[in-house]
Amino acid sequence: MRREALLELLRKLEAGKIAPEEAADRLASLPFEDLGFAKVDHHRSLRSGMPEVILASGKTPSQVAIIFAELAASGVNVLATRASQEHYNAVRETVPAAEFHNLARCITLLQSKPEDVTGHIAVVCAGTSDLPVAEEAAITAELFGAHVTRITDVGVAGMHRLLSYLDALRAADVIVVCAGMEGALPSVVGGLVAVPVIAVPTSVGYGAAFEGVTALLSMLNACSPNITVVNIDNGFGAGYVATLIARGPQH
Amino acid sequence: MRREALLELLRKLEAGKIAPEEAADRLASLPFEDLGFAKVDHHRSLRSGMPEVILASGKTPSQVAIIFAELAASGVNVLATRASQEHYNAVRETVPAAEFHNLARCITLLQSKPEDVTGHIAVVCAGTSDLPVAEEAAITAELFGAHVTRITDVGVAGMHRLLSYLDALRAADVIVVCAGMEGALPSVVGGLVAVPVIAVPTSVGYGAAFEGVTALLSMLNACSPNITVVNIDNGFGAGYVATLIARGPQH
Amino acid sequence: MRREALLELLRKLEAGKIAPEEAADRLASLPFEDLGFAKVDHHRSLRSGMPEVILASGKTPSQVAIIFAELAASGVNVLATRASQEHYNAVRETVPAAEFHNLARCITLLQSKPEDVTGHIAVVCAGTSDLPVAEEAAITAELFGAHVTRITDVGVAGMHRLLSYLDALRAADVIVVCAGMEGALPSVVGGLVAVPVIAVPTSVGYGAAFEGVTALLSMLNACSPNITVVNIDNGFGAGYVATLIARGPQH
Amino acid sequence: MRREALLELLRKLEAGKIAPEEAADRLASLPFEDLGFAKVDHHRSLRSGMPEVILASGKTPSQVAIIFAELAASGVNVLATRASQEHYNAVRETVPAAEFHNLARCITLLQSKPEDVTGHIAVVCAGTSDLPVAEEAAITAELFGAHVTRITDVGVAGMHRLLSYLDALRAADVIVVCAGMEGALPSVVGGLVAVPVIAVPTSVGYGAAFEGVTALLSMLNACSPNITVVNIDNGFGAGYVATLIARGPQH
Amino acid sequence: MRREALLELLRKLEAGKIAPEEAADRLASLPFEDLGFAKVDHHRSLRSGMPEVILASGKTPSQVAIIFAELAASGVNVLATRASQEHYNAVRETVPAAEFHNLARCITLLQSKPEDVTGHIAVVCAGTSDLPVAEEAAITAELFGAHVTRITDVGVAGMHRLLSYLDALRAADVIVVCAGMEGALPSVVGGLVAVPVIAVPTSVGYGAAFEGVTALLSMLNACSPNITVVNIDNGFGAGYVATLIARGPQH
Amino acid sequence: MRREALLELLRKLEAGKIAPEEAADRLASLPFEDLGFAKVDHHRSLRSGMPEVILASGKTPSQVAIIFAELAASGVNVLATRASQEHYNAVRETVPAAEFHNLARCITLLQSKPEDVTGHIAVVCAGTSDLPVAEEAAITAELFGAHVTRITDVGVAGMHRLLSYLDALRAADVIVVCAGMEGALPSVVGGLVAVPVIAVPTSVGYGAAFEGVTALLSMLNACSPNITVVNIDNGFGAGYVATLIARGPQH
Amino acid sequence: MRREALLELLRKLEAGKIAPEEAADRLASLPFEDLGFAKVDHHRSLRSGMPEVILASGKTPSQVAIIFAELAASGVNVLATRASQEHYNAVRETVPAAEFHNLARCITLLQSKPEDVTGHIAVVCAGTSDLPVAEEAAITAELFGAHVTRITDVGVAGMHRLLSYLDALRAADVIVVCAGMEGALPSVVGGLVAVPVIAVPTSVGYGAAFEGVTALLSMLNACSPNITVVNIDNGFGAGYVATLIARGPQH
Amino acid sequence: MRREALLELLRKLEAGKIAPEEAADRLASLPFEDLGFAKVDHHRSLRSGMPEVILASGKTPSQVAIIFAELAASGVNVLATRASQEHYNAVRETVPAAEFHNLARCITLLQSKPEDVTGHIAVVCAGTSDLPVAEEAAITAELFGAHVTRITDVGVAGMHRLLSYLDALRAADVIVVCAGMEGALPSVVGGLVAVPVIAVPTSVGYGAAFEGVTALLSMLNACSPNITVVNIDNGFGAGYVATLIARGPQH
Repeated sequence: MRREALLELLRKLEAGKIAPEEAADRLASLPFEDLGFAKVDHHRSLRSGMPEVILASGKTPSQVAIIFAELAASGVNVLATRASQEHYNAVRETVPAAEFHNLARCITLLQSKPEDVTGHIAVVCAGTSDLPVAEEAAITAELFGAHVTRITDVGVAGMHRLLSYLDALRAADVIVVCAGMEGALPSVVGGLVAVPVIAVPTSVGYGAAFEGVTALLSMLNACSPNITVVNIDNGFGAGYVATLIARGPQH
Repeated sequence: MRREALLELLRKLEAGKIAPEEAADRLASLPFEDLGFAKVDHHRSLRSGMPEVILASGKTPSQVAIIFAELAASGVNVLATRASQEHYNAVRETVPAAEFHNLARCITLLQSKPEDVTGHIAVVCAGTSDLPVAEEAAITAELFGAHVTRITDVGVAGMHRLLSYLDALRAADVIVVCAGMEGALPSVVGGLVAVPVIAVPTSVGYGAAFEGVTALLSMLNACSPNITVVNIDNGFGAGYVATLIARGPQH
Repeated sequence: MRREALLELLRKLEAGKIAPEEAADRLASLPFEDLGFAKVDHHRSLRSGMPEVILASGKTPSQVAIIFAELAASGVNVLATRASQEHYNAVRETVPAAEFHNLARCITLLQSKPEDVTGHIAVVCAGTSDLPVAEEAAITAELFGAHVTRITDVGVAGMHRLLSYLDALRAADVIVVCAGMEGALPSVVGGLVAVPVIAVPTSVGYGAAFEGVTALLSMLNACSPNITVVNIDNGFGAGYVATLIARGPQH
Repeated sequence: MRREALLELLRKLEAGKIAPEEAADRLASLPFEDLGFAKVDHHRSLRSGMPEVILASGKTPSQVAIIFAELAASGVNVLATRASQEHYNAVRETVPAAEFHNLARCITLLQSKPEDVTGHIAVVCAGTSDLPVAEEAAITAELFGAHVTRITDVGVAGMHRLLSYLDALRAADVIVVCAGMEGALPSVVGGLVAVPVIAVPTSVGYGAAFEGVTALLSMLNACSPNITVVNIDNGFGAGYVATLIARGPQH
Repeated sequence: MRREALLELLRKLEAGKIAPEEAADRLASLPFEDLGFAKVDHHRSLRSGMPEVILASGKTPSQVAIIFAELAASGVNVLATRASQEHYNAVRETVPAAEFHNLARCITLLQSKPEDVTGHIAVVCAGTSDLPVAEEAAITAELFGAHVTRITDVGVAGMHRLLSYLDALRAADVIVVCAGMEGALPSVVGGLVAVPVIAVPTSVGYGAAFEGVTALLSMLNACSPNITVVNIDNGFGAGYVATLIARGPQH
Repeated sequence: MRREALLELLRKLEAGKIAPEEAADRLASLPFEDLGFAKVDHHRSLRSGMPEVILASGKTPSQVAIIFAELAASGVNVLATRASQEHYNAVRETVPAAEFHNLARCITLLQSKPEDVTGHIAVVCAGTSDLPVAEEAAITAELFGAHVTRITDVGVAGMHRLLSYLDALRAADVIVVCAGMEGALPSVVGGLVAVPVIAVPTSVGYGAAFEGVTALLSMLNACSPNITVVNIDNGFGAGYVATLIARGPQH
Repeated sequence: MRREALLELLRKLEAGKIAPEEAADRLASLPFEDLGFAKVDHHRSLRSGMPEVILASGKTPSQVAIIFAELAASGVNVLATRASQEHYNAVRETVPAAEFHNLARCITLLQSKPEDVTGHIAVVCAGTSDLPVAEEAAITAELFGAHVTRITDVGVAGMHRLLSYLDALRAADVIVVCAGMEGALPSVVGGLVAVPVIAVPTSVGYGAAFEGVTALLSMLNACSPNITVVNIDNGFGAGYVATLIARGPQH
Repeated sequence: MRREALLELLRKLEAGKIAPEEAADRLASLPFEDLGFAKVDHHRSLRSGMPEVILASGKTPSQVAIIFAELAASGVNVLATRASQEHYNAVRETVPAAEFHNLARCITLLQSKPEDVTGHIAVVCAGTSDLPVAEEAAITAELFGAHVTRITDVGVAGMHRLLSYLDALRAADVIVVCAGMEGALPSVVGGLVAVPVIAVPTSVGYGAAFEGVTALLSMLNACSPNITVVNIDNGFGAGYVATLIARGPQH
């Protein structure tokens, strides 16, 4: 039953064919979607111009290509994360306008300019090995309409380098910090600014780095109170939430 | 907005004061509960005569007493799990008919005989230290209307004892097996019967028993395929699901 | 010593060649199998028409083919789980009637229609990546005689999709729910129905998903009391127990 | 060396007593604080009117009382978290205006109205046992100037209750969600709204809940992309970041 | 049905009242214990004079006292492990001959001299904090009839002390080594002798000793090949197995 | 300095060239090996005829071949464990008499018959996947002179199969039990016999089997007291210790 | 056999009563200690004037008092770590000159001035809760003769405070850094100096701090290469090694 | 702004073009690097002649080659760790003088003799599988100017071999000990010497060795107090810190 079915029920009531009590009973047993619930999501996506997102890893190139093409056909912007060159090769056959961001392992398709985001995002990373995760965050944020400043290679073992970017850090409305190994950078950055910091542990490191677990735990215990954390290597999630924050209250 | 509010909306439509389209739009934004969704739960509890359950641990005696009394007043059967003597002392002041099961740490109130359950449940435990968890399972199942056979102290280190209960095990329609330490009993029991076995790891043991984690992992890897597992020391959950299974298909 | 040997012993006793005390002593030292113990298993499999099951992973194609052919020759239905295309290639050379289920990674051979199962099973999964595990559960249940409804791609991040299947969920007598990542779906499904839910954590996810451990822990702590859990990716076990439950009490 | 010392150095240079090169060398060896670096923090706190925060646990009542009184004397608002009745008894002897929030285990002192925060915060919790953490978040946010709506007892096992609060959830600019056990609530809430959700795992639960670790892992793997996570039981951190987000971009 | 019941069945057969086939069928359905299976255990205990063992921890003083008295009445030697002074106070009221070993936390009752064990056992411990576990092993072995040499306080940080006991170590037929912290002692001892070494990790240590887990893991990875391991703090198990080994092959 | 050097020193003393006090001082600073310490090892190996052992994994084929050939040249028996076909190909070029045991992944060279071991060893395994580990144990024990009975495929889910081997189990003087998954077999076997049982967890299983960790933990918590444990997949260690035990006390 | 015994043996050789070969054989079987091996330790302690150390926790007050008094009687300096007030009360009854360091939980007795240590040690801690561990390190180092500078409350969330101590940090020859929670401070300090940094994780924190495990892991992955780590809360070990380093090469 | 910019500012002040107050304000807002902060690092590297270090793993051959060539051009010594043959092939094309150390997986370039280090370093390893890590430590230390003695294959299971190196161990001013499996060697070595020991856990082992975690935990709990620990397989870090220690206090 779709909206037509709902309308048909209501029209029967309007026409006096059923009583309000009976209508109420039947409404109680309807699938929720038919009551227009799902439209909310749709309205939201229309309002925000946010792209649809595909997690490419774990899907075959042809599966990604099919989903990508369907979304492209609907006119929205599209982002595929954790994509390989093979994924991209399959996608561009049907969607030639799609672009591949090699470092960030992302495929993007920009069909309409996203709604401009007020606030500014800084994406910071500790070392060059953290760059893929940082780039995933940056490209996500940009595709969702945000302005992004990239600050790279500012690990805590060389404080003077980080401090030389102090102005850039303080100019941001929200900061994404990617770090592996001991994951100490978010604590330090968080102490230098007064805005929300989203910490992204990366799987960079060896031995007791435990594929990012140490960085994750470290960030969850950050002594700066303005820090929240996402999953290991989840650059997309960090970029997405940063955009929501940079957009500011909508009510 | 309660059902009256829904009826008011539908009556406006019936009276021609609003159009079906407008009614559909307004329905889409209603809280779901107001649409009768919550009644389903109610119907279910009326149908099955299942008791209401309170997790006493983590609540003060007076908190438990207040909730217990409210539920008792509604006429249903009541079960409070992980209750202490202090909890019971507080409860019986306002609900004198409540009973305390010391070993199982449960408070029960039986106000109406539960719907009789077709199938039979066996509750098996490996050692005397597992008895509190096993009793919680047994009392839960009985309060929900099931017939329970208790088989105790049949650890895998003494197979002859377990095998002497073979008939009783094979007479059951579902078996709850509680075991701590290495948690091997469900595998063995599961191999002796052709019915579902619900394994309950207990926190019995020391050292590398890790408060029940070893038994939990062992049970999840049981080589008998008829085994499912619940949380450590969760006798209530096991007794509850066993009752659902013993009841058989309802459709 | 087989049954003949036992009979021979008893006949000696009957013939007065040995005394009852001597017979009792010799019985005490017999291998248990010879006393008819093993027959129970046999009776059970004849009664239920349940297929024999092979875990293919960890075995070579030729090993699987040999075991499969032996079982096929005995006339029973056969199920090989976690099988690769190579396994199947080897099997079909000797058992051409065997079928390969690519997504579920199962090889099946249906030689006799299984005993019909009364109750109905719903197999639900959160995302497309969980499909192989869900299919393993569904195919297992079907081969064991159950009727299965598949509900796919109803993750908790889109409640309206799940709720649109509410009728199908409530029509089931037991529900298998497969989910990776945060493993939250069983809790939500469990709260919507009044039947047993078997939760199957999958290894889908990355980072702190820890190859399914997070989903497993989440499901063990599900706040709905009608949930039990099986090992990570254990679709077979879930489908098997679901069938036992759907069959209902047998006594 | 304070600012005067710096000025003294610069005046020597102005007076020609030292050369620019020598001044540059001596500047390079100065403690950073003396160069005005520390003033930034001060400016920030004056600008935002944010209270000073004390972590009471791990400190004696008299230690907390001394620090609390010092901060109170400086005129700022003060918040002490994880405080016991004993902590409060000691504090109110010297700061009678301090208030104790028993459930949230917080001591607050409001000396000046905080700068009003534009956006709105909803603080949601799964069960009554999660209330202390949720209240810590709510009281923190309020003391920092935010408007907070509390939504309690909406666990995922009873979706209809959560869905009945849909309007309240969608009216918020940022949502704090506290949950223990399987920690599934943030995923579900995150799927219902288009704003940032801060997930707070609580140590509520037993057995495989592992003092909040299961909820923490679950939230880090939430399938809704608008979720970030803080440490177990860290209501303060969640309330603090929520306020920063609700304030919106400041540049 | 006990042995009498079995004899009754066999006598019926002997008397021609039932046929051998019927007797075979009825035998197949007998509880295993009735077939003399359990007697094996009994014979074994009579033969070896091994004491009965009670795990006192987790039982109340009166529970331990009752079980202890029952076993004492049957004439066997008795050992209660992990017993407190309260346990002992309760035991000696009914069994005045029971002795309490304060350091080892054991209660023993020697009613008949155990069968002499051929081989010799050395019980070695790394530090004074490991003594309770070592004593539990030593007292267990002695009560089971073994001769024990105690070597204490020979941690690996002072090799010269350990090496000064080389003759004593090489005179043993099996060695129990108790160590906490890094658990390195079994590796070193194992390299000095040519007999089985049973390693007992103790919960001695702090921080990353993880209540004995580090010592346990260390011992499992010991580079000497003559080492096997028991559970953390399981002095009883080590003493028991050491006695079995010291007894030598019995066939 | 070798023995000659020691003798030279002592001869100087005998010849009156140095005083006893000086000789004592110089002895204190000698390398220990020179004092004959190392000879003990040599004597031991000569006495027992035990083979030398090489851990092949982690070494290149040529490295293994060189070490193997050196040992072969010294006339002792040789065992290389965890060896691949490539390792063997390299070894047999220089030591054509070496044999490869494909299933056990062992290379052996028998140059002299080992001293006969009195006691008897049973090597038991739960499933066919555990066979490589069991074979490593069996071949090790045999090369060290022990008599071994192999009992395979007797998992706890089919107790009747295990019980049919009861006589064989009870004829052994020490039993090695290999099992993966839930690792329950040692507990059950341990309860059936009165001799030492060496439990070998194997990495067989998936999901929450955690590469053998679950079986390891399970075995450490075995409720039968006659069980000790070795590292995951350590068939060699189990076979070696079993041989030491089967040899019996040597003093 | 002590040195006299050795001399007796050598004198027999000198007197021609035994041959050099026989003497060599008997030397090979001597306990190592008798050969002067143990004297080395003695010489070392005499040379360095290092105090003897007692780990008080896990020992009774009277046990600590007895050991303390014995060591005091031998004239050396004494340090008891992890001592309670009760430990101290017992100690000062027999050793009135002993001092109690309440914050560091240490009892010290200084009977002779320790050999002066050349280098300088800085002991840094992140927060006031880390002070007990830092004090244990500082007092240990001082009792062993080192000069210590204490720098407290310089967490990474307030970089300006840490940087204001840059001169003090750079004046040290070795730095001990104590930090709990995310344990990021050693990385930052390590990047600011060119000397060895000893990182001490503390058990300060809650939730995912896991009693110091997070800080420990973080420090092991520190991106500054001049960092080594000791056990959680091991202030003594850090202070001891720092002193050895500050002493410089001795050869 | 570089030093010239700073000088320009100071010259303006000297010239009276700006007032000291204005100069102070502008200094407070300068990037820290421009204030000469970074020069400290530079001075340090010039003073010590320490090489620049590249972590090759995780970088492509061409990336490593580019960085290597840049550093080489600046005249310093260069060390690339965890380098493959492919990395080296790329490096030597542009820097033909670079050398590859196959076992240690290091590429080195020595352009100027490093400042001689006073103290002596011993690098000890337990088995041949630990050699790559030990060599990384040794080559690092040598490139930084230290004298290194290598002691290999001295595992704790053969104490006599280790003890035969006692003189060499006692001649060192700092010792690096590499060990996998149970990681017991540092404890033993630490007890034999009076200098700092740096323990390096290696990932050598299988099963419960957990890729070096067991060795790591073991070393953190070493009962010798002169031990500190670095990350698993971190030979570079150990060699680096050992050199700093061997250099002795610099003030």
